[in-house]
Amino acid sequence: MDGALGKKYLKDYSAEVQPILAEFLSAEMEVSKDLGKIPLMLMDSYKDMISRGKGIRGTLVKLGYLVGGGKDVDEVVRTSIFVELFHSAILIHDDFMDRDPFRRGAPTVHEEFKKVGKDFGVRIPLDHYGNTAAVCLGDAGLYLSWKALLNSKLPQDRVIEASKLYADFIVRLALGQSLDMTITGMEDIGEQDILTVIWTKSGEYTSQLPLFVGATLAGGMGDEKLAALKDYAKCFGWAFQIQDDILGLYADEDELGKPVGSDIREGKNTLLMLNLRKHGRSADKKFMRKVLGNPNVSVEDVEKMRKILKESGAFQKVVDMGWEYVEEGKQYISRITKDKKLLEVLESLLVYMMERTK
Amino acid sequence: MDGALGKKYLKDYSAEVQPILAEFLSAEMEVSKDLGKIPLMLMDSYKDMISRGKGIRGTLVKLGYLVGGGKDVDEVVRTSIFVELFHSAILIHDDFMDRDPFRRGAPTVHEEFKKVGKDFGVRIPLDHYGNTAAVCLGDAGLYLSWKALLNSKLPQDRVIEASKLYADFIVRLALGQSLDMTITGMEDIGEQDILTVIWTKSGEYTSQLPLFVGATLAGGMGDEKLAALKDYAKCFGWAFQIQDDILGLYADEDELGKPVGSDIREGKNTLLMLNLRKHGRSADKKFMRKVLGNPNVSVEDVEKMRKILKESGAFQKVVDMGWEYVEEGKQYISRITKDKKLLEVLESLLVYMMERTK
Repeated sequence: MDGALGKKYLKDYSAEVQPILAEFLSAEMEVSKDLGKIPLMLMDSYKDMISRGKGIRGTLVKLGYLVGGGKDVDEVVRTSIFVELFHSAILIHDDFMDRDPFRRGAPTVHEEFKKVGKDFGVRIPLDHYGNTAAVCLGDAGLYLSWKALLNSKLPQDRVIEASKLYADFIVRLALGQSLDMTITGMEDIGEQDILTVIWTKSGEYTSQLPLFVGATLAGGMGDEKLAALKDYAKCFGWAFQIQDDILGLYADEDELGKPVGSDIREGKNTLLMLNLRKHGRSADKKFMRKVLGNPNVSVEDVEKMRKILKESGAFQKVVDMGWEYVEEGKQYISRITKDKKLLEVLESLLVYMMERTK
Repeated sequence: MDGALGKKYLKDYSAEVQPILAEFLSAEMEVSKDLGKIPLMLMDSYKDMISRGKGIRGTLVKLGYLVGGGKDVDEVVRTSIFVELFHSAILIHDDFMDRDPFRRGAPTVHEEFKKVGKDFGVRIPLDHYGNTAAVCLGDAGLYLSWKALLNSKLPQDRVIEASKLYADFIVRLALGQSLDMTITGMEDIGEQDILTVIWTKSGEYTSQLPLFVGATLAGGMGDEKLAALKDYAKCFGWAFQIQDDILGLYADEDELGKPVGSDIREGKNTLLMLNLRKHGRSADKKFMRKVLGNPNVSVEDVEKMRKILKESGAFQKVVDMGWEYVEEGKQYISRITKDKKLLEVLESLLVYMMERTK
């Protein structure tokens, strides 16, 4: 089975959830009107950013709920916007930390508000002003996410259980991010630190959190099913992250919506770099050390890096690893659900994580 | 009545809550151990910072619960740590935004982690690294706050109601903060913007949020009592903020725990400055424009600013305003509760907001 069904499922979820998100945020903007222009402009950027999300995490909340036997699909979809609200909010913080200029095809919030600050004649340094705007908007978004979750009409005890899971996962994500910033650009860090960083932001957060929250909202599941869901989530998270790293260097820039090669400029220790360090020739590694974390790296050097990764075999190793996770993940699905339709969606969506081009 | 009883009530609350906070955070550090050294060092700074808080907001949660007729005092105190966890987390973000070097007598997180980053040999610019560490730790703290609230053993429907209030207030606080950063250092902003900024961070957040959350956890109160509580909260918030502005410029630096005059260096439009703009001579206003927002302002200029504020009468106007709020606030108390002990605590604590020296 290919990823077509999974891709369509994602697209359908996004189409379903976008009007709910838009309505939720419009109501919030109405409430914030008395705070003046800048807060409203920030909320507008947030709304715009969310409308361009892929909806992977929200889709997994819905799927977790369905495999958990939940029946109120409309309400879980309404509830699932919490994770989309969260994801955009934390990306606003991440983009400031990574000093990324673009996201989803538009300037990032800290970049956009440098310009806004200039127009408004702010007196603090514009770079700093942009950063503070991003942190404020991210903070507001984190609490909007909580509001969406707590407003769920699903049973209160399940909402509280799901909320506790949500809190636990995000504490780890935020602390894992501090480790990420610490090792960014470092040459001689242990593989374990790299894997910890990748794991907290992909496996734990991107796949396990939404699937588990969904299952919890449905009323939970037996230990054996839950263990299978966790194994599936692990494979899903790795496949997602591996393709993310690959797309970050090999995608079509217009389709990706952010600069190809920014991982190199930012000195991110991706799986591609880890494999080059393990399997590359010493000249390749020397070149990697030269370009990794260099903010002024040229288009030619990014192109050379792409070539080296392919020629050294590091690229293929990472691709293979991704597909191995897909194959492993498939094996757990029959223990998660007996529902034919869901079986197919879980499998196809997993495959799509490696097939996707953005 | 003076503020002695209120001061003691605050102190007793702090003594009661500190071991609960310490235990909560120690358990969290145990969970985060696998993330490595940096996350643990961050959590350690957070724990340390919280241990030096005044506990005003947590005390108000407890008082809101008591005037709401709540009986499980031990559990509401355990629950109230959420607002202390929140307050320290958001201060970590605020300190980065205000570029404050000190807080509660110790270096701020973004300052401390510049040095830590250097010791660890991080590759991104150290200033930026310090800022990212502060944002990560703040984010983690926000979610630890949620965890503490959701773990409350008080009735679940009340916890959810209180949580929704909490989310709503903080969205406004975060967006209000973006307005604060926008008008920082500006000379010709409207009084309304200044009052909005002060109101969202003092009245709404510092007093109304914790009092209302406490009352909600107790099961709510009638409309008339709630209206009186809101009026009291308004006066409490203004008195708190007015004294905060005064202490920021006139306190003993060692006692305050942060540099006296930092509001001037940061260009904060405090009530003192607003009154000088309204009532000062043109030479005074000219001097104010010269120093406000100047990061290199001298000790002599800060001293001169203090003198100008006193001589122009702006200082006294703000002090008077604070005491007027105290007097107004006292009038609402008898409509909030009939309990003699609580009546006295509410009155004395309100007085203490203007009497406090740190």
